[in-house]
Amino acid sequence: MRPQVLIIGCGFGGLEAARALRAADVDITVVDKTNHHLFQPLLYQVATAGLSAPSIAAPIRHLFRSQRNVTTLLGEVVALDAAARTATLSDGTRLHWDHLIVAAGATHSYFGRDDWAAHAPGLKTLDDAFEIRRRVLLAFEAAEREDDPARRAALMQFIVVGGGPTGVELAGTLAEIARHTLPGEFRRIDPRQARVLLVEGSPRVLQAMPEALSERAREQLAALGVEVRLAARVTGIDADGLDIATASGTERLASRCVVWAAGVAASPLGRVLAQATGCALDRAGRVVVEPDLSIQGHPGIQVIGDLAAAHSHAPGREPQPVPGVSPAAKQMGRCAAANIQRRLRGEATQAFRYRDYGNLATIGRHSAVVDLGTPVGPLRFSGYAAWLFWLFAHVYFLIGFRNRFVVLMDWAWAYWTYDRSARVVASAALNGASRASDAPA
Amino acid sequence: MRPQVLIIGCGFGGLEAARALRAADVDITVVDKTNHHLFQPLLYQVATAGLSAPSIAAPIRHLFRSQRNVTTLLGEVVALDAAARTATLSDGTRLHWDHLIVAAGATHSYFGRDDWAAHAPGLKTLDDAFEIRRRVLLAFEAAEREDDPARRAALMQFIVVGGGPTGVELAGTLAEIARHTLPGEFRRIDPRQARVLLVEGSPRVLQAMPEALSERAREQLAALGVEVRLAARVTGIDADGLDIATASGTERLASRCVVWAAGVAASPLGRVLAQATGCALDRAGRVVVEPDLSIQGHPGIQVIGDLAAAHSHAPGREPQPVPGVSPAAKQMGRCAAANIQRRLRGEATQAFRYRDYGNLATIGRHSAVVDLGTPVGPLRFSGYAAWLFWLFAHVYFLIGFRNRFVVLMDWAWAYWTYDRSARVVASAALNGASRASDAPA
Repeated sequence: MRPQVLIIGCGFGGLEAARALRAADVDITVVDKTNHHLFQPLLYQVATAGLSAPSIAAPIRHLFRSQRNVTTLLGEVVALDAAARTATLSDGTRLHWDHLIVAAGATHSYFGRDDWAAHAPGLKTLDDAFEIRRRVLLAFEAAEREDDPARRAALMQFIVVGGGPTGVELAGTLAEIARHTLPGEFRRIDPRQARVLLVEGSPRVLQAMPEALSERAREQLAALGVEVRLAARVTGIDADGLDIATASGTERLASRCVVWAAGVAASPLGRVLAQATGCALDRAGRVVVEPDLSIQGHPGIQVIGDLAAAHSHAPGREPQPVPGVSPAAKQMGRCAAANIQRRLRGEATQAFRYRDYGNLATIGRHSAVVDLGTPVGPLRFSGYAAWLFWLFAHVYFLIGFRNRFVVLMDWAWAYWTYDRSARVVASAALNGASRASDAPA
Repeated sequence: MRPQVLIIGCGFGGLEAARALRAADVDITVVDKTNHHLFQPLLYQVATAGLSAPSIAAPIRHLFRSQRNVTTLLGEVVALDAAARTATLSDGTRLHWDHLIVAAGATHSYFGRDDWAAHAPGLKTLDDAFEIRRRVLLAFEAAEREDDPARRAALMQFIVVGGGPTGVELAGTLAEIARHTLPGEFRRIDPRQARVLLVEGSPRVLQAMPEALSERAREQLAALGVEVRLAARVTGIDADGLDIATASGTERLASRCVVWAAGVAASPLGRVLAQATGCALDRAGRVVVEPDLSIQGHPGIQVIGDLAAAHSHAPGREPQPVPGVSPAAKQMGRCAAANIQRRLRGEATQAFRYRDYGNLATIGRHSAVVDLGTPVGPLRFSGYAAWLFWLFAHVYFLIGFRNRFVVLMDWAWAYWTYDRSARVVASAALNGASRASDAPA
């Protein structure tokens, strides 16, 4: 029997690891909680009705159809046994491993305030995206029915918490929808009067970017009509809005549609792994890994992607923490696969080294900021050229030809018409429309 | 103030009625429970992962964006007051009418066995389609995890109840998925061994068609690998399968994925209307209407589409019952709109006359049956030419240019690759996978 490689999670890290083992003489089992690999950088487009779910989600077993050494299983790992080297799925299925790669990713974190979740959904899964789409669209619908001016204003106030790439993209797109997509379709309200607020705790948006680009992003958001509140700490969220604290005091912001793009926590599978192996977790619940991405005392178990508290080991430099971005997850996937092959050949494993090719974020139609590392130094630009660069980079990295094509067509359509093609709310659960308190947590 | 026209429901009938009043000097309010007009003839493609939801669903207010005399409201009518001429929505909003068109459509009927609903979802809404898609795809996933041969066989047995157009289309497409889309993507099961059964109570499928075409449809289904059980009455459905009674006795069919395409019942709004006006309902709960589609004693209230028990009044012929098909709903919508305009001019209303242009149903790739009425007599054909005719007829009638284009692209892709682009199950509710008993009712 060939060595058994078990990969838990098929995000960017797990997918890349399995692909890198394409020619290896191993049997690979890929387990994921969903049936699809999700192109998360475009998930905000599903949430804002620009793309349909199938455009950014590819069935995992379809991606592996011609890689004959991969078996795909839909399932959730609920227990791990490091001595017996088995993983147990929630339906009782047991899977054996000789080499384990844990790539279970991250979920949102409400900084210990899980009661906020019901009032401010995050954006990690397709279900999350549908929920945000539903709340945004139903808020405008409820405003059209509402006669009371104060309640109507609250319904037309949208708040995004968190000024990272997701928050910036969401806020920019919401402003575009209000100003360009919806006007003309309502008779009682004017969607252009909707307010979109972006609340960020630190003094600038896009903290991973150089300060000048953060400032450009803030300007572009303002030009789109987004009110950016910097250095504003969220102190409470309920069904009718949120409370923020700033240097100038506290403020209440009424809203029936708050989106959470602020905190990220490691997958709960980190704790399961810690129980099984005694490995250490950091404050965010991420698994502390050795330089070669394995966990201490368990060379056969590697942790990659957002679940790993990993460092980059470049020759002659201090180890640097690896950011939670998709290029890092992919590189860790390739590193883990290479280390498995080295172990199979009896060679020593190698330390992970992260190559940072840069950083980009889009703000809306025609606006983006780009920060690239090049051999001759950083290349930084913003505006229209950055937006085109962002567009083609994202379409290029989309999985599968068809998805790329469909996404490009959808965007071309949206670009020329300002229309958003996926403005469909499936759920008949009308009452609860935009009332966060009624929504499932 | 201009006369107020209230239209409840924006399916084919309601949409057509509002459009026919485009130039009328009236204010129109269109109320629907969902935010989209659904192109129901292609809903089975969403259920079988061939199309994404936005491809066949257009936001209602987007459809009316340039018809300035229409206000669109998302809401569910829960009460009607015929004396005050008001409708009340579930959120308390009150709407006044001078002319009311009730076009609330139909839902599925389990012939009094509502306990079957949890085990055999029907197909009327996008939510229904997602639920069926989920069950079909998760059944294959569960089979891939399953080691027990009997349980695996049950997971790979799909049963469609009802041999009308929807049942025939669903069964044919499921067989295609098993034989052409999925093979090669599984490692432990062979999807081609899946069985698809179509259970029909009457002695033939597509009863609205001439007998020869029903027989052609049965042959085409058999060629696709569907086992057609005719004259088989369903006597029980539970989480593990269903019981049928035929002339040769009773039989138990194990299945974890049963789809209900058998019975249709009028919208519950029929009962609300009957309470408010004393109008008569037929056995299926449909509202008995006058020749001009109004209800007795209430000339200002018209009922159209699947909710109406209407007759066609052709000169010199006995009144004929109108079938529950989309062309009839559209024609009733135009008739109701014309009658409102006649009343506004002080003219007499006219009786509804249904023009039957024919009937068509598709069975799968390359197969369909077509029965057209022409001035020189019926034109009947089947097979490839019928399939092309079906294809272009459906794309032609799809609402909006973009949807047509997207659907054509999706189909062209599916045609050449056998791939189905929307094989995405959003819900993380894994356990329950293919176990009908665990699914929400």
